[in-house]
Amino acid sequence: MKFGGTSVASIDRIKNVANIIENKKKEGCKLAIIVSAMAGVTNDLVEKSKSISNHFSNEEYDVLLSSGEQVTSALLAGCLVDKGIQARSMLGWQIPIVTEGQHKNSRIISVNSKSVQNYLEKDYVVVIPGFQGISEEMRISTIGRGGSDASAVALAKALDADRCEIYTDVEGVFTTNPDICEQAKKIDKISYDEMLEMASLGAKVMQSSSVQKAMINDVEIYVKSTFAPEKSGTQILSEDKISYDKVITGVAYSRDDAKVTLMGVKDKPGVASAIFKPLNDDNIVVDMIVQNISADSNKTDVTFTVKRDDMLKAENILKNLKSEIGYEKLLTDNKVSKVSIVGAGMITYPGVAFKMFNALATKKINILVISTSEIRISVLVDDKNTELAVKTLHSAFELE
Amino acid sequence: MKFGGTSVASIDRIKNVANIIENKKKEGCKLAIIVSAMAGVTNDLVEKSKSISNHFSNEEYDVLLSSGEQVTSALLAGCLVDKGIQARSMLGWQIPIVTEGQHKNSRIISVNSKSVQNYLEKDYVVVIPGFQGISEEMRISTIGRGGSDASAVALAKALDADRCEIYTDVEGVFTTNPDICEQAKKIDKISYDEMLEMASLGAKVMQSSSVQKAMINDVEIYVKSTFAPEKSGTQILSEDKISYDKVITGVAYSRDDAKVTLMGVKDKPGVASAIFKPLNDDNIVVDMIVQNISADSNKTDVTFTVKRDDMLKAENILKNLKSEIGYEKLLTDNKVSKVSIVGAGMITYPGVAFKMFNALATKKINILVISTSEIRISVLVDDKNTELAVKTLHSAFELE
Repeated sequence: MKFGGTSVASIDRIKNVANIIENKKKEGCKLAIIVSAMAGVTNDLVEKSKSISNHFSNEEYDVLLSSGEQVTSALLAGCLVDKGIQARSMLGWQIPIVTEGQHKNSRIISVNSKSVQNYLEKDYVVVIPGFQGISEEMRISTIGRGGSDASAVALAKALDADRCEIYTDVEGVFTTNPDICEQAKKIDKISYDEMLEMASLGAKVMQSSSVQKAMINDVEIYVKSTFAPEKSGTQILSEDKISYDKVITGVAYSRDDAKVTLMGVKDKPGVASAIFKPLNDDNIVVDMIVQNISADSNKTDVTFTVKRDDMLKAENILKNLKSEIGYEKLLTDNKVSKVSIVGAGMITYPGVAFKMFNALATKKINILVISTSEIRISVLVDDKNTELAVKTLHSAFELE
Repeated sequence: MKFGGTSVASIDRIKNVANIIENKKKEGCKLAIIVSAMAGVTNDLVEKSKSISNHFSNEEYDVLLSSGEQVTSALLAGCLVDKGIQARSMLGWQIPIVTEGQHKNSRIISVNSKSVQNYLEKDYVVVIPGFQGISEEMRISTIGRGGSDASAVALAKALDADRCEIYTDVEGVFTTNPDICEQAKKIDKISYDEMLEMASLGAKVMQSSSVQKAMINDVEIYVKSTFAPEKSGTQILSEDKISYDKVITGVAYSRDDAKVTLMGVKDKPGVASAIFKPLNDDNIVVDMIVQNISADSNKTDVTFTVKRDDMLKAENILKNLKSEIGYEKLLTDNKVSKVSIVGAGMITYPGVAFKMFNALATKKINILVISTSEIRISVLVDDKNTELAVKTLHSAFELE
């Protein structure tokens, strides 16, 4: 069971988590609990490090930040003991959870599950701080922000757990954001692949790399609400265990992108490389790309999207290369939004893309760029059309 | 160098500490730094544990509280690195600092100085969280509140350090409290014994058990101010290294005591035991005792002091034993204050007690009880006379 920052944000919430654990214990489960830092604590520690230096030592950053999860672990274990439940905290170095790679952004490479199993067999609830491990140099390491999900999956795998429950502040994964579409429904089962497409597109329930890790290790995830633990939540599992009765599973959207258009690009071999290589060299990820035939048949318009944060950087790079690439005009637009339909079911249903474009057309929503994967079709639309596009697609594919 | 909670209370103060360390480093010193939690942090963590339970698990209490010093260590080490100084934090379990005894109140039994020496030889400044260690069961332990002083002395001993500097928010140990006697002067050198008498009597510069430990291990202590590090501070060392030109070294006082009087106690063998054994059984420490001959020659009055916090408890115990002890009346008074003169010099000067009592008498200050040690004479006075008594004695023994 993993409890995120909002689930343990206060002493009262930690007591609530202890109650959830107590009930689960009564079902006869052996429990390893992974906790995040209390909401706000990590940000406060990061601020402290920044007020010392913007280039604060990575090694000491890990020593600093890991204290947040340590505090939650001690408080929760103490709370369980107070309820008469055998419990203890086990920190990253005590287990140990061994990591490799750079400080501040390590990867878990092994978990010595014996130490934890030993206590589980003595019927202890073991409370483990997420996000932290220990490097081979015996120094505290952390595995990047949101890393408690990765800790939970790694522990579930190492302990050969029957299930891995991720407790958060929502009831599960929804067909779309309930805040902008009140017809949104909770999804009972979703595949890892779909979850990855949903998550990277804005359904921020679980960290993507942790979903990937769960997929690779076949760890079944249950996303549940800390505030309504009796509800069934959403199960994340492999595609072959799901029978798809719907064409698509959900509608996702994100407002993290910006559109860049180069007009009047000379249509000659190597021009795409001339545009995209310098962007790639500067770590700018290009997502959607479309190339239109220009009125002048020797020229073409190239449109693509980058992360909104990278737009100015991309603009500068391309401006400097104007003569080299040979284009007439550079346009940028950050008032755009990416709306996607996601579903493993679409593989077996033809005409999904047509149905999507048609639905948007009836609402007069202009599609700026299109991109697809096997289980996803994304369109770039004007930011002001986001809500309407999401609602339209949610309804067109009968998700309500 | 040890820096207490107020010395590291904010990021700015941590930067100040880094400057002090930088200057010391320039003198060519090899430095191990012991830090406390930022002022307020430990209390906040204690409050959190209390809002879960008044009987919060001792083991988890140690995991919880040790995070405070961990945070300071990381911030200070990061700050030093940022200044271009080679530095790293080493936590209790990384060194390790091994403790024994109960959680929440452990004792340091060994420090593996090799790991620290190894980094000192590579010219690193090693930053070590005070107050924490690791038990033989590999669990985090703490050595009681104020324990960072003990950590500093233990490290100084283990590293065979040339000196142990305790940085605090005062310039050193004073002849008396400057807040109530403006003639108070900083003491240049004071013996461990004198320091112990001063500290237990209210001059709260350094934790008494740490002074004891320094005395046993012959670690020379320098108490200095974090806010005026250029000043010489007070040196605490063994008596034989000090030449005493004054009869007394300082005047201390405390308001932690209460007076209990049993009037009309039957003067028979075993009566003292009947009074003090039950108090001792209930962990009540009796400090000063005086017995007066009563008007009725078969009876006597017994007066003694206990900690003010224990007064009600003592009163209840004695009330319940009224017939057993056989006394007529029980009086208590918590409006009392203990004023002491302390000085190794008094051993060789006769008439010190007379001089003290005489000085108080000229100011019409009534002495309620008296107690002495080899290097201390204490009197109990009315609380309202505290300030006058301190000033009178400070002047009578020419400490200004």
